[in-house]
Amino acid sequence: MLTIKQIKEAASRINGTIRQTPLLSSDRLNKHLPFDLYLKADCLQRTGSFKFRGGCNAVFSIQDPGQPVIAFSSGNHAQAVALAAHLSGRQATIVMPEDAPQAKIEGTRHYGAEVVLYDRYNQDREALGKALAIEKNAELIKPFDDERVIAGQGTAGLEIAHQAQELNIIPSHFLCCCGGGGLMSGTAIALANSFPDIQLFAAEPQEFDDTGRSLRSGKFEHNAPDARSICDAIVTPSPGKITFPILQQYNVKGLSAPDEDALHAMKIAWSYFKLTAEPGGAIALACALSATFLDQFSSQHPRQSVVVMLSGGNVDQDMFLRALDTTCRF
Amino acid sequence: MLTIKQIKEAASRINGTIRQTPLLSSDRLNKHLPFDLYLKADCLQRTGSFKFRGGCNAVFSIQDPGQPVIAFSSGNHAQAVALAAHLSGRQATIVMPEDAPQAKIEGTRHYGAEVVLYDRYNQDREALGKALAIEKNAELIKPFDDERVIAGQGTAGLEIAHQAQELNIIPSHFLCCCGGGGLMSGTAIALANSFPDIQLFAAEPQEFDDTGRSLRSGKFEHNAPDARSICDAIVTPSPGKITFPILQQYNVKGLSAPDEDALHAMKIAWSYFKLTAEPGGAIALACALSATFLDQFSSQHPRQSVVVMLSGGNVDQDMFLRALDTTCRF
Repeated sequence: MLTIKQIKEAASRINGTIRQTPLLSSDRLNKHLPFDLYLKADCLQRTGSFKFRGGCNAVFSIQDPGQPVIAFSSGNHAQAVALAAHLSGRQATIVMPEDAPQAKIEGTRHYGAEVVLYDRYNQDREALGKALAIEKNAELIKPFDDERVIAGQGTAGLEIAHQAQELNIIPSHFLCCCGGGGLMSGTAIALANSFPDIQLFAAEPQEFDDTGRSLRSGKFEHNAPDARSICDAIVTPSPGKITFPILQQYNVKGLSAPDEDALHAMKIAWSYFKLTAEPGGAIALACALSATFLDQFSSQHPRQSVVVMLSGGNVDQDMFLRALDTTCRF
Repeated sequence: MLTIKQIKEAASRINGTIRQTPLLSSDRLNKHLPFDLYLKADCLQRTGSFKFRGGCNAVFSIQDPGQPVIAFSSGNHAQAVALAAHLSGRQATIVMPEDAPQAKIEGTRHYGAEVVLYDRYNQDREALGKALAIEKNAELIKPFDDERVIAGQGTAGLEIAHQAQELNIIPSHFLCCCGGGGLMSGTAIALANSFPDIQLFAAEPQEFDDTGRSLRSGKFEHNAPDARSICDAIVTPSPGKITFPILQQYNVKGLSAPDEDALHAMKIAWSYFKLTAEPGGAIALACALSATFLDQFSSQHPRQSVVVMLSGGNVDQDMFLRALDTTCRF
């Protein structure tokens, strides 16, 4: 199983290429909350999401300096691998559904990758990818079930630990968005290493709470085929094979929130923190602001420090306008 | 005249209370520009603007620990002084026009200050302030013509210098918004100390280019009484008495941009940097993206590093929606 050593090695490999993102708090928002909330603003990471950490570590770990890379993704992982490949002078091929948001397709091309579009309803993505990987002798970079990717995402946890020490706080809780679980598992290892008593929570959209249910039942649960969510970045069908055992070992619990709470959290991030979040990137903040979570703290003194991941900001304007249209509950 | 020593002393006094804000770049935006642009994201400062640096240094410099403070302001300086007073256990009175944005009045109250509203058309603010200062034995914290305030704002320049060294860049140009000139003069001293060849630019709204005209004529120029701008944070009538000689000494040049370019810069900050800027806070970015500025670089190699201040993010939603409605020119 992945260890803190691999995460520290990832940090040595990619620090200087990735950006250390700030850990922010809002004096005004905290007045409304029964704890002090700290937001890890990874929407400020290069390519606009945490995915660049893992993509960068995976690509930079490849021994052969000329070997091309390939990835499947409709969004943030695509841009992350494309930029990491560009920075290391490798060719990148990104296989994207032809109905992916135009901005994300253009973004991926901007970073210098060759984008291969496919018809997600009539073409087999896996077969297409395998054929392309063989044709180009390219190494496949999976979005979460890859130890190099998880170790890279874990560097966000190392940063939080360092920043918390600078702020002289000991986080009691950490909430992180969870799709396949790459960021959640990597940061769990890093944070538990520094703060053995921290309580870890995987935040998911209400209709895509496969990880929370899997953690409760102890086996791989899946989401309903007709489930839908605006949290496009984290609508994975089930936990990852490598990530899930890590979440179990670190006693991660599940939390979930409906899409309208993700929109509300985006509004809070904009209004109080001056940050742009995408729906999936704001789901941990949505869970932190839910009555279920807040009610745990009602009678506790002194105030605890709750760290919340804001993992990405690649959102279309129409969706952002929907968030701004929300009424702030705080 | 203020020196780098006072700015370093300010940093020692307020580091740990203020936040070190990130210096961000966008791989995608830079592809469209003839230089590498670095954005100092002081909209992420506590209270949502750089003003907290100067307010904090001024308030923390007062010898008598129990002395109350007073400030006149319709916005960012108000919130900055209110929070600094709160953190140091002092009473704060903020004199605000009764037609100031409700959000800013509420924000100032949130930080624990007593807000005294006045009728800006029928009451004499100076006389009111003087009477209140005597009544409360309070020390007045001016928004820019105060060496403690300028030294505090200068800490943003120290941070930029440190961050540029970490990024291994030597900034060739620095563009900063300029109302009374507190931030511009403080950062000019700090940056020129680290980068003797840096070219410094004061960015103003087109109708409020008093500083640019004053720098060209060598004397205090004023804006037309009927001038209007959406850049509410920087619509000062003329340069400050303490700040202007500093700008002259450091050979600062003026740049200006129309309001619609400030809105466009807000859209760029949102789209490429995931940040919320207010119009006045985005005016330096607007000037950096203007044809006048860009054209200087057309044939220059290698690429230079241009640092741009994004100084605040306290914007009403209606104004932000106007910015989102702008078409990105990049």
